[in-house]
Amino acid sequence: MPLSDIAEDAQQVMSANKAAVSRALNLVEDRRAESHARVAELLAALKDAPKAAGGHRVGLTGPPGVGKSTLTSVLARGLRLRDRTVGVVAVDPSSMRSGGSLLGDRARMSFDPTDNGLFVRSLATAGEVGGLAYAANSSVRVLGAAYDTVIIETTGVGQSEIDIVHVADTVVLVIQPGSGDVLQFLKAGIMEIPDILVVNKADQDELARRAVADLRGALRTAHAVGAGGAQDGAWETPIVATSATKGSGIDELIAQLDAHRKHVETALLARRRRGEVQWTLDLFIRKHGEHGVSTLGGRRLLKARAERELDGGETPLSLCEQLSREYVAALGQTA
Amino acid sequence: MPLSDIAEDAQQVMSANKAAVSRALNLVEDRRAESHARVAELLAALKDAPKAAGGHRVGLTGPPGVGKSTLTSVLARGLRLRDRTVGVVAVDPSSMRSGGSLLGDRARMSFDPTDNGLFVRSLATAGEVGGLAYAANSSVRVLGAAYDTVIIETTGVGQSEIDIVHVADTVVLVIQPGSGDVLQFLKAGIMEIPDILVVNKADQDELARRAVADLRGALRTAHAVGAGGAQDGAWETPIVATSATKGSGIDELIAQLDAHRKHVETALLARRRRGEVQWTLDLFIRKHGEHGVSTLGGRRLLKARAERELDGGETPLSLCEQLSREYVAALGQTA
Repeated sequence: MPLSDIAEDAQQVMSANKAAVSRALNLVEDRRAESHARVAELLAALKDAPKAAGGHRVGLTGPPGVGKSTLTSVLARGLRLRDRTVGVVAVDPSSMRSGGSLLGDRARMSFDPTDNGLFVRSLATAGEVGGLAYAANSSVRVLGAAYDTVIIETTGVGQSEIDIVHVADTVVLVIQPGSGDVLQFLKAGIMEIPDILVVNKADQDELARRAVADLRGALRTAHAVGAGGAQDGAWETPIVATSATKGSGIDELIAQLDAHRKHVETALLARRRRGEVQWTLDLFIRKHGEHGVSTLGGRRLLKARAERELDGGETPLSLCEQLSREYVAALGQTA
Repeated sequence: MPLSDIAEDAQQVMSANKAAVSRALNLVEDRRAESHARVAELLAALKDAPKAAGGHRVGLTGPPGVGKSTLTSVLARGLRLRDRTVGVVAVDPSSMRSGGSLLGDRARMSFDPTDNGLFVRSLATAGEVGGLAYAANSSVRVLGAAYDTVIIETTGVGQSEIDIVHVADTVVLVIQPGSGDVLQFLKAGIMEIPDILVVNKADQDELARRAVADLRGALRTAHAVGAGGAQDGAWETPIVATSATKGSGIDELIAQLDAHRKHVETALLARRRRGEVQWTLDLFIRKHGEHGVSTLGGRRLLKARAERELDGGETPLSLCEQLSREYVAALGQTA
């Protein structure tokens, strides 16, 4: 695809043309090398999209079965009622094993297909490790150029393939009453502390109250063991009780999302830049491994360089290509 | 270290000399390149240890807080009472974030330090991704050359860094009553079906009965969605209720471990070989990434080659070194 087409495609994505957004995401999911090159060009063209800077990338994560899909659709509806446009990308790691989205999983999401301010895509890129991370990162950037709010929904606890902290401005961990295992992961510091905690399926007062109390305890322990976290500075993780099926708690969730978005406002570019630096390193390590990193001077040096060159206008994909060329050239000289 | 020293060290490890085993594990945890080369030599020398072939590698996994450490020490004691020697390697991924094992975690294990038939080591190799997998794989091979039973205890659910299926002959998943999140992972097919399921903290009859019933349901669903599993052929995952603190259920757990070890007997070499092939690929990918794999002909070809060359006497570490040399040479020719 010549550059002029890319520029036109980018323009259409930025004006939230559904067909153009859909084509762009198809490109992202296409695993052929020539598609990767076109994705790199497209993301470069979308880098300074007006929507992106003002937008909000919300990461929704948690174990399977807690009702993330339903919550996502209810949350999207709530945002649409406030006249914000919404792009949803749902990432399904279980598809890596079972070869397809789980029965009925997407069926739990209900969206109005005629609404032009809402776009939903499920990513189920089966196959190689890192494929989902690449697709999720790229999709968020495409949707971020088109819509006010991007919701990234992903299943995962502990070390999951997609480090949602590096993709989202606000990380929301969704659990249900009795999610003792997740609390343990949080307490042990294996799981990062989210920006917002949601107890979904909080229909029964007593159970919900207890779950909230358990969570407060787990958060205290997590802070005590020095677990890393998504939050910046003085932010204190709020706990929101919701019932996605009844639609309760959604207003408060949106209020907390807005509060967090406002809280990170001044640090937003820095936070996203950290995410881009990390994505650059992840891409390069996935392609050339530890030997690639050490040949080009080590992780610290590469990180500093990524910070500099991303400031200078490179994108993670273009910078990874550049580093790759240097690595192969360096090996050619020593061999 | 000259080769003769390696041979002597290997001999002492095989005779279960505690100081020699300890030195070998120090070497495994040492991250310098020269130590890696010595580990490769040591593992090659231990490859055909008499203990290894007849031994049993038991993987004990599950979320934090379910009592794995206590269960490990009680299980080890039960095996010692049956006159089997035991090596334990406890892997602690939380240490990657918090910079050290959690307070009191190891304290929950109680072992007799004067017992020469029992060796315990906690791995907390902080730092780079893949470091724990390397250390765990190598440690299991060292301990397997010295002791009848090796227990690998690791925390993890979903995608964890160490794929226990590739390290252990028998995978035991430990949960506690109310571990709903783990059941969901199992049902969604994100988590592999273990060889043996243990419900620990099964002190209360009613809760334990319910947990066992939930597990049976989860196993049925996991089989229905076609989740991968550790089990071979006709093995049906038994569910064992234990109370590590009271010592109940341990006899049944040992009986089930023995039954599974017997079940896999004829397929044991093939199962371990699959694990070695996977470790070889993991090592090479960690070092040279996807570019390394594609340059040497792709994953399928590398896998077939690993099967052949491991049969021919190479070890995963030596074969990875060989592949690495070929990759660098190939790049030198094309650049």
